[in-house]
Amino acid sequence: RINKFTILHYSPFKAVWDWLILLLVIYTAVFTPYSAAFLLNDSEERKRRECGYSCSPLNVVDLIVDIMFIIDILINFRTTYVNQNEEVVSDPAKIAIHYFKGWFLIDMVAAIPFDLLIFGSGSEETTTLIGLLKTARLLRLVRVARKLDRYSEYGAAVLMLLMCIFALIAHWLACIWYAIGNVERPYLAHKIGWLDSLGEQLGKHYNKSDASSGPSIKDKYVTALYFTFSSLTSVGFGNVSPNTNSEKIFSICVMLIGSLMYASIFGNVSAIIQRLYSGTARYHMQMLRVKEFIRFHQIPNPLRQRLEEYFQHAWTYTNGIDMNMVLKGFPECLQADICLHLNQNLLQNCKAFRGASKGCLRALAMKFKTTHAPPGDTLVHCGDVLTALYFVSRGSIEILKSDIVVAILGKNDIFGEMVHLYAKPGKSNADVRALTYCDLHKIQREDLLEVLDMYPEFSDLFLTNLELTFNLRDETAKVHIKSYIFFFP
Amino acid sequence: RINKFTILHYSPFKAVWDWLILLLVIYTAVFTPYSAAFLLNDSEERKRRECGYSCSPLNVVDLIVDIMFIIDILINFRTTYVNQNEEVVSDPAKIAIHYFKGWFLIDMVAAIPFDLLIFGSGSEETTTLIGLLKTARLLRLVRVARKLDRYSEYGAAVLMLLMCIFALIAHWLACIWYAIGNVERPYLAHKIGWLDSLGEQLGKHYNKSDASSGPSIKDKYVTALYFTFSSLTSVGFGNVSPNTNSEKIFSICVMLIGSLMYASIFGNVSAIIQRLYSGTARYHMQMLRVKEFIRFHQIPNPLRQRLEEYFQHAWTYTNGIDMNMVLKGFPECLQADICLHLNQNLLQNCKAFRGASKGCLRALAMKFKTTHAPPGDTLVHCGDVLTALYFVSRGSIEILKSDIVVAILGKNDIFGEMVHLYAKPGKSNADVRALTYCDLHKIQREDLLEVLDMYPEFSDLFLTNLELTFNLRDETAKVHIKSYIFFFP
Amino acid sequence: RINKFTILHYSPFKAVWDWLILLLVIYTAVFTPYSAAFLLNDSEERKRRECGYSCSPLNVVDLIVDIMFIIDILINFRTTYVNQNEEVVSDPAKIAIHYFKGWFLIDMVAAIPFDLLIFGSGSEETTTLIGLLKTARLLRLVRVARKLDRYSEYGAAVLMLLMCIFALIAHWLACIWYAIGNVERPYLAHKIGWLDSLGEQLGKHYNKSDASSGPSIKDKYVTALYFTFSSLTSVGFGNVSPNTNSEKIFSICVMLIGSLMYASIFGNVSAIIQRLYSGTARYHMQMLRVKEFIRFHQIPNPLRQRLEEYFQHAWTYTNGIDMNMVLKGFPECLQADICLHLNQNLLQNCKAFRGASKGCLRALAMKFKTTHAPPGDTLVHCGDVLTALYFVSRGSIEILKSDIVVAILGKNDIFGEMVHLYAKPGKSNADVRALTYCDLHKIQREDLLEVLDMYPEFSDLFLTNLELTFNLRDETAKVHIKSYIFFFP
Amino acid sequence: RINKFTILHYSPFKAVWDWLILLLVIYTAVFTPYSAAFLLNDSEERKRRECGYSCSPLNVVDLIVDIMFIIDILINFRTTYVNQNEEVVSDPAKIAIHYFKGWFLIDMVAAIPFDLLIFGSGSEETTTLIGLLKTARLLRLVRVARKLDRYSEYGAAVLMLLMCIFALIAHWLACIWYAIGNVERPYLAHKIGWLDSLGEQLGKHYNKSDASSGPSIKDKYVTALYFTFSSLTSVGFGNVSPNTNSEKIFSICVMLIGSLMYASIFGNVSAIIQRLYSGTARYHMQMLRVKEFIRFHQIPNPLRQRLEEYFQHAWTYTNGIDMNMVLKGFPECLQADICLHLNQNLLQNCKAFRGASKGCLRALAMKFKTTHAPPGDTLVHCGDVLTALYFVSRGSIEILKSDIVVAILGKNDIFGEMVHLYAKPGKSNADVRALTYCDLHKIQREDLLEVLDMYPEFSDLFLTNLELTFNLRDETAKVHIKSYIFFFP
Repeated sequence: RINKFTILHYSPFKAVWDWLILLLVIYTAVFTPYSAAFLLNDSEERKRRECGYSCSPLNVVDLIVDIMFIIDILINFRTTYVNQNEEVVSDPAKIAIHYFKGWFLIDMVAAIPFDLLIFGSGSEETTTLIGLLKTARLLRLVRVARKLDRYSEYGAAVLMLLMCIFALIAHWLACIWYAIGNVERPYLAHKIGWLDSLGEQLGKHYNKSDASSGPSIKDKYVTALYFTFSSLTSVGFGNVSPNTNSEKIFSICVMLIGSLMYASIFGNVSAIIQRLYSGTARYHMQMLRVKEFIRFHQIPNPLRQRLEEYFQHAWTYTNGIDMNMVLKGFPECLQADICLHLNQNLLQNCKAFRGASKGCLRALAMKFKTTHAPPGDTLVHCGDVLTALYFVSRGSIEILKSDIVVAILGKNDIFGEMVHLYAKPGKSNADVRALTYCDLHKIQREDLLEVLDMYPEFSDLFLTNLELTFNLRDETAKVHIKSYIFFFP
Repeated sequence: RINKFTILHYSPFKAVWDWLILLLVIYTAVFTPYSAAFLLNDSEERKRRECGYSCSPLNVVDLIVDIMFIIDILINFRTTYVNQNEEVVSDPAKIAIHYFKGWFLIDMVAAIPFDLLIFGSGSEETTTLIGLLKTARLLRLVRVARKLDRYSEYGAAVLMLLMCIFALIAHWLACIWYAIGNVERPYLAHKIGWLDSLGEQLGKHYNKSDASSGPSIKDKYVTALYFTFSSLTSVGFGNVSPNTNSEKIFSICVMLIGSLMYASIFGNVSAIIQRLYSGTARYHMQMLRVKEFIRFHQIPNPLRQRLEEYFQHAWTYTNGIDMNMVLKGFPECLQADICLHLNQNLLQNCKAFRGASKGCLRALAMKFKTTHAPPGDTLVHCGDVLTALYFVSRGSIEILKSDIVVAILGKNDIFGEMVHLYAKPGKSNADVRALTYCDLHKIQREDLLEVLDMYPEFSDLFLTNLELTFNLRDETAKVHIKSYIFFFP
Repeated sequence: RINKFTILHYSPFKAVWDWLILLLVIYTAVFTPYSAAFLLNDSEERKRRECGYSCSPLNVVDLIVDIMFIIDILINFRTTYVNQNEEVVSDPAKIAIHYFKGWFLIDMVAAIPFDLLIFGSGSEETTTLIGLLKTARLLRLVRVARKLDRYSEYGAAVLMLLMCIFALIAHWLACIWYAIGNVERPYLAHKIGWLDSLGEQLGKHYNKSDASSGPSIKDKYVTALYFTFSSLTSVGFGNVSPNTNSEKIFSICVMLIGSLMYASIFGNVSAIIQRLYSGTARYHMQMLRVKEFIRFHQIPNPLRQRLEEYFQHAWTYTNGIDMNMVLKGFPECLQADICLHLNQNLLQNCKAFRGASKGCLRALAMKFKTTHAPPGDTLVHCGDVLTALYFVSRGSIEILKSDIVVAILGKNDIFGEMVHLYAKPGKSNADVRALTYCDLHKIQREDLLEVLDMYPEFSDLFLTNLELTFNLRDETAKVHIKSYIFFFP
Repeated sequence: RINKFTILHYSPFKAVWDWLILLLVIYTAVFTPYSAAFLLNDSEERKRRECGYSCSPLNVVDLIVDIMFIIDILINFRTTYVNQNEEVVSDPAKIAIHYFKGWFLIDMVAAIPFDLLIFGSGSEETTTLIGLLKTARLLRLVRVARKLDRYSEYGAAVLMLLMCIFALIAHWLACIWYAIGNVERPYLAHKIGWLDSLGEQLGKHYNKSDASSGPSIKDKYVTALYFTFSSLTSVGFGNVSPNTNSEKIFSICVMLIGSLMYASIFGNVSAIIQRLYSGTARYHMQMLRVKEFIRFHQIPNPLRQRLEEYFQHAWTYTNGIDMNMVLKGFPECLQADICLHLNQNLLQNCKAFRGASKGCLRALAMKFKTTHAPPGDTLVHCGDVLTALYFVSRGSIEILKSDIVVAILGKNDIFGEMVHLYAKPGKSNADVRALTYCDLHKIQREDLLEVLDMYPEFSDLFLTNLELTFNLRDETAKVHIKSYIFFFP
């Protein structure tokens, strides 16, 4: 449906073109002020210019830039865009309207080829005027700025960018600084302008009779840049310094701009450093809380060490992120899918879950909790109430009765009690301890019963298939038939 | 009830007047130190002043300022104000008391026309004294400061203001710097004061016999300002630098003030930048949590992509704000109104809610949840328990039975089960999947039954009017009449 | 029980003494380095010193300081302290042990009167040695530092302190800077040391034959201070600058110290500014959430305005603090006391609560919630379920039936329903709307019934005394005797 | 199982060796650029070098470094490492592969002994080349950087490190700065290079005919370092400043580097200061909330003081950390162990808990709450419902009946009611008030009954053994047999 001259905004051609235009804009941003300030006022340059437009390589590049900018406008009229409803618009009329409302004006002004328009009259005034008018091209930078927005998340990119902007502004100010010195020089009664001082310093004195006397362009540009940098970074060596009033006023402006720019660099670096530290800071705050807890409760050393080790292990394991909170952040249907994935091995391989319907498996997956136990950790103490059924998925576990190992369980083993047989949870008749780092799937008694209740057809299957590797229920424990009886009702 | 000469504090006249006074205060803040330091000590100026008060334009402005400040005091006595109980007070006596307790003293001191009071004696000492006394007008700035408080939320405004204060302080310090140099100059044995050095530099040497020799006022002011700026911004070029003891001591003070001012600009810029980044930072922290979650659980690619896409979509949709939390922040009666608005279309247009009383609609609105589903998202899986009733309000939804599309639902369609017919929720007999971005209103089974129970007259209507577009209930599923039976009670 | 020579650590005498010692320490911190560097090496001073110890005012002060510091040690041996169990210890032996373990060493070293010990030999080497040894007194500052810790919460105090430390360090460095220049001067082949340059600049050349030639002490001190300040604040004018190697090395150290000090000032100012903004920042974040909520749900204007107004009103009212959270932070017995205070007026004045026991009132107070309603807010809509009983404590409220005002309630009025008469809450037969800003005490039906159940003797009284100003119960509403009946059990 | 030539990565030998290598790397980082820039270009040095390799002490050290670096590579091939599964790998083949993939290349390049390889030809070009090639050793610093990562949590360490890096970079730049001046000097038409200026300043002029004229190496190094420091810290005195174009360009680079380095120091100091304040900030925010709460509810003075005192006491006690939250952060089995520890004294010593099984004690420990009461605090008011059983573990408590002390309880005393005798909680017949700071163990009635229900064999024992020191139950209070009866069902 799309016209063959229409360019998709995500096509590779457009991407390459955008980067090309970006390069040209940067070229313009650098060379337009430079040529406006340094070259136009220069005698040799003026001569070169008089000899014709096409003979200099710089002018050829300028011509190419002019043409490219005009082509870019045409291309923009044929490039699709995404509207507010997230639809790609390819209708030329709509594109044109969208472009007119947006960047057209800036692109237009930046693309006017002033050189060609005022061509012919080669007087000094005209060339200066052209130089000033061509600074309109810097408007294009606004458009680049928006493009760079997406890199704002990367601290280093922001810093690089800031340094580039810093350098660019220093370059512009250097151009202005030169222009001030150059314009003012002939009218100064006392030769105290910075260019005169520079000539003095370098031993290249200005000579009234010789127009080409004085420092070279390179000398002047480097010195101007050096001055603006030393002002902007607040170093201020002072061997190049403002002496006339206009130089001083300009210098005040540069200092003001410099302090703001410097402050923004500092602010950014501060922000980046704080982002760098945020992880460490979170860890230390939590560690401090644990240490304070230990100090507060005067927890003695074996237990104390366990607490600290657990904390450190948990942190390196999860990076201090509450995985459950992240899970809860997703909508329920995604949660179920995640839980299915997490318990995939268990639900697929364990005999007990064979024959369960998809819905039933989803319901079960949502109920399972995965626990991670370090070696030596006692999962169930003898006498504890058996509130859950455990499925071992990694590592090995020992079962101890009065400190004698009665069983060692491994992958795919199940321990707990036959949940469905009893109305009330029983008590454990043994200690269960992790031998290595273990991963366990655990389902609460109530949750399991609820699912079984909901899926009666699965319930029968499950009860037939479930084979406990070790039944923890203490059958000798006194059965309490009725709840406590009070003397006074 | 209000006297016709009483001015309302929110009247346009008062607003205009306040801005006018603000301008005059700024004028005073700029010109009072300038004239005190530069003009009064100057020989030409002294002559001009001797020729009479009214002849100079600057003095006319000063006179106007004097008069305006006095008028402002009178106006303040007639301007209403808001007391602590948020009542507008227009009683002149109370206004006067309020004003006397507040800004009166500052306004009074700032408005004394010292020029007029000590008029007559045109000696040098008197004019210097007047200059010093007139700095009392700067007290007015305190009042302006309070006015600017309200702009503190806008980073750019704070920055602008700080730069203005910076410039103003630089201006004041420049005036003092000039005054020091000027007062000290005649008494120096060695001509090493900064004014002498400046004269030397500019080639305008001071000449003992010629009082008008030396740099011009403009030279001196610009140089003084350049010096204070270069001190305050810590650039310190050094071509203008303190040489005498008093200059050095003053310079130490300027450096101290400068470091504090500079630090406060940096601090503000840091704060602004951190505010700018706070949104991005929040996004990245959340994104990191999701990525860490994926890494931790080693979630494979189709699911992983869904999680990331969901997160990004949800973020762009809600900007990372928990809308439910915001809703909960409002009092219940506002909450109900908001919910009514959110479910307006549903409650007004859906046949099922016809005839419901206002109270009933409010109760229903509070129970509805709006969900937003991306295309491809499965809302209900076959076999899931039907815990809710869904009303489609945007987008289209397909219903699949063993991967065959049996229905496509659109706007205003309802799916779920006939909640009121069954004591227990049934199970879904089909998958429900979003085809496009969908908005759904969802009401939990229990919530619906509760409302129906509360409004029995509506209950009958609802059951008659409710027409499910698609009944998801799986009638073939085994009905479980009784709960699980345990072998051991 | 306390010995009469024992001084209580919180006694006014001790406080005054501590401030006195603080002043002396500051005096020492300022004058010890100054005299060590400037006076000892100076020819006139040396002469003055030779003429005897007691004749100079500065030396008298030094003597007093020496004596005071020794007295302070004695006083410390008699001053009580607080031990870890928060008990005041007044036993001299324990005090002595505590002091020996703590500050004794520092106090001792700082109090040694080197002048007196090495008295007699008035040679130059001895005086220099004394000067260096006396810097041990600066150790006392460590003790002052701990005292200042408590002011760390006040941003301005921290800043003041930092500036003072900054100035003090600058002073010390100025003394060292002078000492370097002075010591090195005689040995320099080329007279390029900073003191020679200064002499040149000020026109006070050093003269080999005249020991008293060169700049005056004041010139030298001010210039040294000016140099250290311009280094520390990174201004670096350069008219006073290091020329010899040792000067350059010292200057590098000063620059390093300066950058750290400067950074810490900046860091503190940043922290203070961020603390200043934290309130505003919290407000804006919350406001943004509300605005985002409105934008997200496209809430139209009347409701939108209500939301924004409510938010702003609530913020100015509570400053964005969740009062309930603060209350929950206190232990239960304090909570009850606070609640009693909050509902004091209601519980004391309302007839319904007459005769309730203290325990019962506490139980009731815990259940009451206070709500604040702005004018125009509808508290109860017609048809809403009556879940609470309301007691008006401020403002007036109107009751409307089909938009006709049927009653206006004021202070001490009660509305709701006769809770105890019905097993189920009824529905409202009218709208209840606030006319002015209202404060209401509200108790949930269940909470009230629970308390009545708990205190049966009060229950009878309450039911007799409770007089509803307006009974909202809609008696005409269909009474629903039984819960919903399902077709399929 | 481990080969005797295999070195464990945690063995003391390896640690010492690592520190040794670290020292050598730092030595290399400092001396390599220095010798490359200063010594190689120097005439005397050149001569010294020509006289043979082994005669100079510096060269011997260089040789040792070369050898040590090669040995380090060999050692690395025999050092065990920890793989991703947290296993120690000691298999030489695996170690080699791990090393080849990791640091081998950097270590290799840094260890190449260029001196020895290009030995023989003693020409100037070769030595310069060797100097440049030896900078490859700086690569080793990358490895050091990773080692320093672990100190990032200590603010002071980070700062120290930053200052060292700052100094190191200044040193390197000083070397480059000297090299530029030295290389450029012979080719300058006007002698305006910084070395010429320095010669002028120090009175040690360069002399064409005398190669050894000009400033000494020490002069040049100190001045170069002084220049880079004054640029990097943005002081910029200006007495040493760039004059030629290449010097200016280098200076621009130094200023840019300096601003970034300075910004990172500032950012770090800011971060450290904010971390320092975070504790205080948290305290003040909470205190502000409490104060705002008091202001909002206009709480009068006796209560107000209690609130503030409680808050301050609680803060100093727990440092503002919610101990319960920390406890909840641990897995259940650790929680039980902690609770057992916390209630150890009670459960071991109290007669009532004798004969309880381990599981039962764990269950009980989990239910106990420890409360801390300040003196004067009323724990139970007369008429309060007795919801808990209290065990005093520290301090003394008085029991008051109508303001008459009827009992004083101390350690190990129990008060409350005989929980098991009544179906409903009773009411207190007395006030219970803390006399001193008290620690109490408290168990809720429901929790206790639940545990008793779960462990029936313990239940009988408990009821026999439990001896209340003071029974608070008010037997005279009206017994309420049935719940409230409603008039309308």
